[in-house]
Amino acid sequence: MAEIKYEIVEHIGVLSESAKGWKKELNRISWNGNTPKYDIREWAPNHEKMGKGVTLSDDEVRVLKELLNK
Amino acid sequence: MAEIKYEIVEHIGVLSESAKGWKKELNRISWNGNTPKYDIREWAPNHEKMGKGVTLSDDEVRVLKELLNK
Repeated sequence: MAEIKYEIVEHIGVLSESAKGWKKELNRISWNGNTPKYDIREWAPNHEKMGKGVTLSDDEVRVLKELLNK
Repeated sequence: MAEIKYEIVEHIGVLSESAKGWKKELNRISWNGNTPKYDIREWAPNHEKMGKGVTLSDDEVRVLKELLNK
């Protein structure tokens, strides 16, 4: 199987937590050693498993911020 | 095959566009007729196909906004 290497470079915050202990988090993650990107994703306790999510560049986060602050 | 019904209730904005014309968008989407939720997701031109993304409740968006504005 293919492998994805990642490192959570900065844990920014938790958006919510489910009854089963999965947390939806905002982090900065380096994928395969590349420049870290923002990432909104669900995680099992202790980051043992990752769920679905989106990765956002600095530019995308800037636009998102503007849209949310309107 | 199972079917998911959705309606884009509010198109809030476009975060970015790829070379192939897919756009990463922030929308409010009603899934299966339920109360609309915020949604960050990639879409093919004319919303013909949806890509991966995350759905966010009002509460999650409130926290996200606070974290981004820090």
